[in-house]
Amino acid sequence: MKAEIITIGDEILIGQIVDTNSAWIAEQLNLAGVEVFRITSVHDDLNQIEEALKQAEKDVDFVLITGGLGPTKDDITKTALCNFFNTRLIFNEDVFNIIHERFTRRNIDINKLNRDQALVPELCEVIPNKLGTAPGLWFEKNNTIFVSVPGVPFEMRHILTYEILPRLMQTGRTKAIYHKTIHTQGLPESMLAERIDQWETALPADIKLAYLPNPMSVRLRLSAVGDNEELLKQRVEKEAAKLQDLIPDYIFGYDEDTLPEVIGRMLIENGRLLAVAESCTGGYISHLITLVPGSSGFYKGGLTAYSNELKENLLGVDPELITRNGAVSEPVVRQMAEGLKNLMKVDYTISTSGIAGPDGGTDEKPVGTVWIAVAGPYYTAAEKFILGDNRERNIIRSSYTALRLLRQMILKDI
Amino acid sequence: MKAEIITIGDEILIGQIVDTNSAWIAEQLNLAGVEVFRITSVHDDLNQIEEALKQAEKDVDFVLITGGLGPTKDDITKTALCNFFNTRLIFNEDVFNIIHERFTRRNIDINKLNRDQALVPELCEVIPNKLGTAPGLWFEKNNTIFVSVPGVPFEMRHILTYEILPRLMQTGRTKAIYHKTIHTQGLPESMLAERIDQWETALPADIKLAYLPNPMSVRLRLSAVGDNEELLKQRVEKEAAKLQDLIPDYIFGYDEDTLPEVIGRMLIENGRLLAVAESCTGGYISHLITLVPGSSGFYKGGLTAYSNELKENLLGVDPELITRNGAVSEPVVRQMAEGLKNLMKVDYTISTSGIAGPDGGTDEKPVGTVWIAVAGPYYTAAEKFILGDNRERNIIRSSYTALRLLRQMILKDI
Repeated sequence: MKAEIITIGDEILIGQIVDTNSAWIAEQLNLAGVEVFRITSVHDDLNQIEEALKQAEKDVDFVLITGGLGPTKDDITKTALCNFFNTRLIFNEDVFNIIHERFTRRNIDINKLNRDQALVPELCEVIPNKLGTAPGLWFEKNNTIFVSVPGVPFEMRHILTYEILPRLMQTGRTKAIYHKTIHTQGLPESMLAERIDQWETALPADIKLAYLPNPMSVRLRLSAVGDNEELLKQRVEKEAAKLQDLIPDYIFGYDEDTLPEVIGRMLIENGRLLAVAESCTGGYISHLITLVPGSSGFYKGGLTAYSNELKENLLGVDPELITRNGAVSEPVVRQMAEGLKNLMKVDYTISTSGIAGPDGGTDEKPVGTVWIAVAGPYYTAAEKFILGDNRERNIIRSSYTALRLLRQMILKDI
Repeated sequence: MKAEIITIGDEILIGQIVDTNSAWIAEQLNLAGVEVFRITSVHDDLNQIEEALKQAEKDVDFVLITGGLGPTKDDITKTALCNFFNTRLIFNEDVFNIIHERFTRRNIDINKLNRDQALVPELCEVIPNKLGTAPGLWFEKNNTIFVSVPGVPFEMRHILTYEILPRLMQTGRTKAIYHKTIHTQGLPESMLAERIDQWETALPADIKLAYLPNPMSVRLRLSAVGDNEELLKQRVEKEAAKLQDLIPDYIFGYDEDTLPEVIGRMLIENGRLLAVAESCTGGYISHLITLVPGSSGFYKGGLTAYSNELKENLLGVDPELITRNGAVSEPVVRQMAEGLKNLMKVDYTISTSGIAGPDGGTDEKPVGTVWIAVAGPYYTAAEKFILGDNRERNIIRSSYTALRLLRQMILKDI
């Protein structure tokens, strides 16, 4: 099955936003065994949208259209679809009820623009959008499937994952495919490749391996395409098990696992509690942990001690140590982690102190210098890292590194 | 002048990389007064590249092609260009000298693949690439300009900035353009549209308005294209000023501004300090604030009081109040905000307590119920919000709502 992604909206074409939607959609379609033939971005312009639809109909079997479904005047995707499919807009009670409920819950009156969002092309199947007001629209024409979804990323991702892709699978026009993602941390891509070289070379020819590095980890994805899903699954899982035996220390999870989730499970299983004391990471570690549903079962809280005064008064860091070594130093992060253990009465703590940038660097401690400590029931460990010069990236990398060190300590303790 | 950007390469279409090149190019072209009509991504495939070029020739005056100029087999852009322009590859001495020099400097022998990079289409103007081995190629056909540049981001940016755009300006075929982005918060898109309807309707026909909503805010963008940049700027700024008078309470910034930055500037100007006490937002507000470079100038720190014990012991919340009202209640967030002011000795604090989900909701307090308080030098304000059922989204929206309430209090105080 061949697909085209059409994104509608001026903001991509004036360079105001990067088209992350298309990359995400392309990945999901590829994962579902659908080849993406082309990605096209066009303006909120009736003629241009219709031209793009015409061209897509010639070239592909499946067209995914994002954007231009909002309530305002510049959102004209529905009109363009009506023109292309020679149909008209009709009022849809179900869509209206969803809109009505969302607004009532938030105590906001519905106006005409909102009511107009319940207008949908007569000729399509309406697919509910559980996270927003604009529904998905599913059309078929001359053996090509056209689906229009909202451009708001989290709405698009939800409707694609839970509504569109499952329906697409049911058409019987896609192949069976099985993927397994293995999350590793602690080895750079090139060293990981070296370590698993023999295993990789011995993979069956139809099982593909992809390296997917990001700032936090290197993911390895095994994929196989075929007719029998159960068989594909067995064969891929067998290779994944071999890899697990090969590099057990570096694998922290599979598929949808995240590092904070994996840590949370380990803590809950062992009846342990966690807290974090953040300086340079500024609350981001705490945010990553509390994104996990049910994190209150293992996470007691955190302190962002951005000023030295708070490090001293609340965490009990010796002011002398800060004067002598600076706040970005081993003794200070050790005292932060240990002080927090006392303050919040927990089993494990993480602490960070570093120079996130862009300012504040010195010759001795350049921007990107970060000290991280982990305190547990038995001992405290601290390590220094030299990262880059991008503030946001330094915050993210420090946070994931701290979580990695925490996981390693918990693994040793249990 | 109307342009199309064509990116060539499989990695975008399999979702392995996000197409940041196109966003950057689109922004540069728009800033240079060139309207980007369409962005198209195609595979390294001769037919597909030629089809894309044919279509572009029909629709636009300027075609920028990136990617597919590397030395390996899958890089076939030059062959596709020769086919399309009906020309052949010839050896170019200047290009070869640049390649030769680069390799000699790095002490690497030149192989056949590298030598082939000095082959260029006979019919084009060769534009030097000072940072890499593949040159830019400039073609003209039936009044349309086609330029091919490497896809490596830093090479592409350099050659576009210093070679392509200056040449394009010299053609006398580009227009002046002016954009202004207005950041609003506190009104959903449809209500905002209603509030500014008269202003929008009265906009001069050549000044375009776009609504750009995201979970945190609705951005409005005014754009005008013409001959005289100074005049365009005056006219757009005049309309933006009218809007500022119309909805002053909802506009928090312009162009590159972010809400935490705007708040930071206000606090620094008034010599005030901030701290946050987070329960349901779990550290995300602290993260948003500390993403701002220099935030240590106005931000002292934060406490993520995820457990009631911390709310009581560190923030001094009365355990009786929690028993009577629950942790998600007005009296508790008020005491959290006021308790933190004492604990961290600051002028302003924000506190949040809510049910982020997916579990923990009750009939009385469903998932998405959030109480937010802001305490300042003169008074404390608290407000209840009912958001949705997606955990991450509830965290993000609560955080931005809290920052909005803080900004409003600071505005009243000064």
